Amino acid sequence: MNTAVDGACVHTRVTTMKIIDVAQVPVAPNPHHVDARKVYDSEHATAVVITLKPGEALKKHLTPVDVFFYVLEGKGVVEIGSERAEVGRDQVVESPANIPHRWVNESNEGFRVLVVKVPRPREETKIL
Amino acid sequence: MNTAVDGACVHTRVTTMKIIDVAQVPVAPNPHHVDARKVYDSEHATAVVITLKPGEALKKHLTPVDVFFYVLEGKGVVEIGSERAEVGRDQVVESPANIPHRWVNESNEGFRVLVVKVPRPREETKIL
Repeated sequence: MNTAVDGACVHTRVTTMKIIDVAQVPVAPNPHHVDARKVYDSEHATAVVITLKPGEALKKHLTPVDVFFYVLEGKGVVEIGSERAEVGRDQVVESPANIPHRWVNESNEGFRVLVVKVPRPREETKIL
Repeated sequence: MNTAVDGACVHTRVTTMKIIDVAQVPVAPNPHHVDARKVYDSEHATAVVITLKPGEALKKHLTPVDVFFYVLEGKGVVEIGSERAEVGRDQVVESPANIPHRWVNESNEGFRVLVVKVPRPREETKIL
């Protein structure tokens, strides 16, 4: 039972805390053919964890909303528009809406990144 | 120079990719007196990395928007409403708007969590 304080009203509702274990989330079919798992999906945002094995890459694509990336593990090369950078664990990268972007794992180890899209996209991502 | 495709128009703009290294972000003063670093702040969302040393805890507080947590390192106890759970690395926890919540590090190691608030809050968090 949770207590919600909404302005002057205090009301209670029964909930069960929602905990998602990324390792248990099924891989979602995707045009990049990589390990992508949706870990959050609400009215305001979606979040996906993408894992790239050594040599794997996403196809260049356009996301219709702003994206930010949080690197969880390893090193990856991010391309946004005509720019390119190698980033690693605990680095955050911003990718504005409608700019072509992709990730490439040029390393010899696994690479994992959390992709947060805000707000929740109403249109499909376009593969280029 | 980035190429943005906006409907039928293709236009170019000069940008520099924004990359944030969490370790270099200054700690923001906060009522919890813990290591909290804002790593993303846009019209649609804000994201903060919180580090709790062994024995440290947040004060119970209400966030006026939905929050999701991505555990980056270690183990933490999350309390949402009257529920409580221990969660660890690569687990995601959802915390709906206006439900009292907090994190406690009851372990002997460091704990780090990414806090994503969607949409960007227009009101202050309330400490209880």
